[in-house]
Amino acid sequence: MRQSQLFVNTLREAPADAEVASHKLLLRAGFIRQLAAGIYTYLPLGWRVLRNIERIIREEMDGAGAQELLMPALQPAELWMESGRYHAYGPELIRLADRHQREFALGPTHEEVVTMLVKNDITSYRRLPVILYQIQTKFRDERRPRSGLLRAREFLMKDAYSFSASWEELDRSYRAMFDAYHRIFGRCGLTFRAVEADAGTIGGERGTHEFIAPADIGEDTIAVCTACGYAANIEKAAAREDQSGSGKTQVPACEKIHTPGVKTIEHLARYLQITPAEIIKTLIYVADGKPVAVLVRGDHEVNETKVKNALGATEVTLADADTTMAVTKAPVGFAGPIGLPVPVLADEAVVRMARGVVGANEGDFHVRHVVPGRDFTVDRVGDFRLVREGDACPRCESGKLRFVKGIEVGHVFKLGTKYSEALSARFLDATGKEQPMIMGCYGIGVSRLLAAIVEQHHDEHGIIWPASVAPFKVHLIPVSIQDETQWRIAHDMYDALQKMGVDVLLDDRQERAGVKFKDADLIGLPVRITIGKDAALGMVEYVERGTGEKQMLAIDEALQRIHERTRETERRVQ
Amino acid sequence: MRQSQLFVNTLREAPADAEVASHKLLLRAGFIRQLAAGIYTYLPLGWRVLRNIERIIREEMDGAGAQELLMPALQPAELWMESGRYHAYGPELIRLADRHQREFALGPTHEEVVTMLVKNDITSYRRLPVILYQIQTKFRDERRPRSGLLRAREFLMKDAYSFSASWEELDRSYRAMFDAYHRIFGRCGLTFRAVEADAGTIGGERGTHEFIAPADIGEDTIAVCTACGYAANIEKAAAREDQSGSGKTQVPACEKIHTPGVKTIEHLARYLQITPAEIIKTLIYVADGKPVAVLVRGDHEVNETKVKNALGATEVTLADADTTMAVTKAPVGFAGPIGLPVPVLADEAVVRMARGVVGANEGDFHVRHVVPGRDFTVDRVGDFRLVREGDACPRCESGKLRFVKGIEVGHVFKLGTKYSEALSARFLDATGKEQPMIMGCYGIGVSRLLAAIVEQHHDEHGIIWPASVAPFKVHLIPVSIQDETQWRIAHDMYDALQKMGVDVLLDDRQERAGVKFKDADLIGLPVRITIGKDAALGMVEYVERGTGEKQMLAIDEALQRIHERTRETERRVQ
Repeated sequence: MRQSQLFVNTLREAPADAEVASHKLLLRAGFIRQLAAGIYTYLPLGWRVLRNIERIIREEMDGAGAQELLMPALQPAELWMESGRYHAYGPELIRLADRHQREFALGPTHEEVVTMLVKNDITSYRRLPVILYQIQTKFRDERRPRSGLLRAREFLMKDAYSFSASWEELDRSYRAMFDAYHRIFGRCGLTFRAVEADAGTIGGERGTHEFIAPADIGEDTIAVCTACGYAANIEKAAAREDQSGSGKTQVPACEKIHTPGVKTIEHLARYLQITPAEIIKTLIYVADGKPVAVLVRGDHEVNETKVKNALGATEVTLADADTTMAVTKAPVGFAGPIGLPVPVLADEAVVRMARGVVGANEGDFHVRHVVPGRDFTVDRVGDFRLVREGDACPRCESGKLRFVKGIEVGHVFKLGTKYSEALSARFLDATGKEQPMIMGCYGIGVSRLLAAIVEQHHDEHGIIWPASVAPFKVHLIPVSIQDETQWRIAHDMYDALQKMGVDVLLDDRQERAGVKFKDADLIGLPVRITIGKDAALGMVEYVERGTGEKQMLAIDEALQRIHERTRETERRVQ
Repeated sequence: MRQSQLFVNTLREAPADAEVASHKLLLRAGFIRQLAAGIYTYLPLGWRVLRNIERIIREEMDGAGAQELLMPALQPAELWMESGRYHAYGPELIRLADRHQREFALGPTHEEVVTMLVKNDITSYRRLPVILYQIQTKFRDERRPRSGLLRAREFLMKDAYSFSASWEELDRSYRAMFDAYHRIFGRCGLTFRAVEADAGTIGGERGTHEFIAPADIGEDTIAVCTACGYAANIEKAAAREDQSGSGKTQVPACEKIHTPGVKTIEHLARYLQITPAEIIKTLIYVADGKPVAVLVRGDHEVNETKVKNALGATEVTLADADTTMAVTKAPVGFAGPIGLPVPVLADEAVVRMARGVVGANEGDFHVRHVVPGRDFTVDRVGDFRLVREGDACPRCESGKLRFVKGIEVGHVFKLGTKYSEALSARFLDATGKEQPMIMGCYGIGVSRLLAAIVEQHHDEHGIIWPASVAPFKVHLIPVSIQDETQWRIAHDMYDALQKMGVDVLLDDRQERAGVKFKDADLIGLPVRITIGKDAALGMVEYVERGTGEKQMLAIDEALQRIHERTRETERRVQ
């Protein structure tokens, strides 16, 4: 394509509200434009990248045996009421009424619709398993849309759903999607990790994985092992607790101590000249309306997701001051586990402590020499804490956990029978018995993926597209289009590359060479061919955007080099 | 693909509310499923056809110099208020509020969004013309969704917009789109006509065309000439008025006659023993609040669109009884042009009448021997009537008009400066002067096109897909999959065809041959290969779905025949 005709121009500056690199660069280089908060137009350059990503997704999904279809964006509210999500989904679900005042939701996801579809068309185990997918615009009314395409209100998503007759069949579909996702992200040139994620109250040990693309501006934190392959979302991550020091030593009897105004762990440690690890922190939570106490070591933080899962609760929130007072008979800051009238959950690290300091359930007092099991009872021991950097890996002997920030670009999830039971999607098994279908769901944030690729592939000058998704593969730049030789060679190479099937952008604009080079770096096509003064000698400059490597090559050599590079990309991506 | 894995099965019966052939067949053959009134899922078979249609559209749009992008479905209401359409669009525009109570429209079309986009990025004539297009889900809350995909509330559309610096440039863009549409519909195997349509108060003689696919169940009526190429939408169609009998004859003076209770043209003709063509019909309309009288011959009907355009009015409605009484001083049925206190518009056929019978503007009386011009004055003469079948073609000497029913599958429209003026989308021309951009818009109903193809290509047994859009090109049917020879040959042919790059559906289901053939006819792939008893002799049956032509061929011959047929389709469509 000729650049003079390309809609649109590059911008010198990104709008002030663009903060992350992908947002700034995609705006400046002319890939996207904002229409409203979190709502974007994909311009021709951006759309070309998205089409390349979509092609890769389709090839891998089809190859994994999934079938593509397209479901509606407008979904009857009754369906969401039947599944119980109409109210649970909250204000992120965009609701509207049609001219007859019938309520609809604007689909943020399609579990309900696809379950009804399969329910109506499949009745026997013989027609299972089936995996269906679509690439579609989705709607989610984010409270605070931000970071450009990374958290938008209208976005492109690939969502897939599997229906199986058994859990083993689900495992196979899950694995097929898991593997396809590896190939998709790999082909898109992304560095990524599949990490264990929180599956809530359903699903087994390997019930759900997130695909995280490491990036400093990412909103997700994952814990990865420095030695083995362990990686998990921070909500899910576990640590191996220190086994040493758990031998029982002789501990004197409890002793109440006066700690006037000492309400925080830090203050208490300073006041008693001990470390936070010698303190037991007692937090009062309200789980689905009922108070519980959660104990973690003073240097640890409670992981509310783990508490929620252990209790099978829908909602877990920290108790307010009044509730804490009612439960502990003391102001916030002096809660302790001794004699508490509510269930006590203790983190494993707590029960390994030989002794600890706890709140006295009385204002301005704590208790020391407290031995778990001896001085208070625990209703449930488990992993209730957030891991910290440096914690021991739960899976290997030698590794430590470190934290990595990243962007969630995909998610695979064993749904089980949640939706098939709510919507009565059943099949007859081989013995003629009715069973709920066993489901999985699998998502890729397509437009978010576009931004994630830019986060990982850019420098101070602009984007550096991986060849597999680049909007064009080659940028042809005649230094001066007034120079007849340069212009003729540029034109001949343009024709030759198009005949080779190579997507090429020809900068035919009346601009200074410096402007053209700047724009080329910003747009970030993999190969730039500069046709300058040496064109008269049959030589052009071949520049790799990624490495900056420059070489003077004869025209035919340059074409040959591009040909090889293109073939290599195709080979690599297959 | 193996049919046993295909989602979904065929249905024996279509739901009772499916009336038109395309709706019934697409449901029965498993191409679509309804989620709510006018809202459909495209199943894998239907989606494959849509993808083929989309590919053809993209090739032709790109070839015509248009650039693809994707604009948002969520559009800020302010934009629609600025263009003046937020209220004018009526209840078909789906409106919603986000969590911050900001109003949005769910895009039924994108003139406002694209105009703002181009306004912000193009400032000089040097970067014009530009043609932008997208293929996107659109929303229109039809009062009565019906006929399956033909009138849906959520549908797929290709919409394109051109921006030009001059009317000549607009003409060129319009022509490029007009020609591309011919190629697109032709490649999709559609019989269609580009017909002149009503352009409202903007646009010139050739300001807008509709692409109509003839079909008995179509909701559009077009008038076509039996002799020349003239074709126009019924709202736009003109007829050549009879030139004979326009010579003035001696007519006696007007005579008031008593016509008690004679209120209709038919009754009056019977009562006076004359033909309706000898009567002048006077109708009182209200145009933007002001009453006018429109005269047509008694055997003609008023074309309100023509009246509206002639007056440059926004709204023209037939006057109610009270208004008619106020204007004519007589009850409805006795209006006449003599001495009327409102502007009088007369159709050309009226002023050609030597004499006529008119209402007397007095209850139970008419007037005869009335000569236009002699006995009443006309403020404006023009074409104000609907054409009738049999009317003379306005363009050629010998042709007569006949009516054809059809489905509107595309529309090209010269918008002019309507949106660029409302939204201040201006550019600097070569002299440095600010000018509004001159726009065109060009739409194709993609999902409607799918249904239109089925309306034109089916028989009593099912669909007959044109090869260019067929979901698979070949249906391989082993009569008995228990028969090892048949199964092996089916499998070998399946592999061979896939290697040839031919999309093939293999019926590997445990079904009786009769069921498989019935399903194959219903699904309607262009070629069916039946592998039966003669397979042992190396012979298979080659069946053309379109003609029903059957032939026994050696396996290699059959493959060769398919190869040639596929190449031919590709050649034809290029």
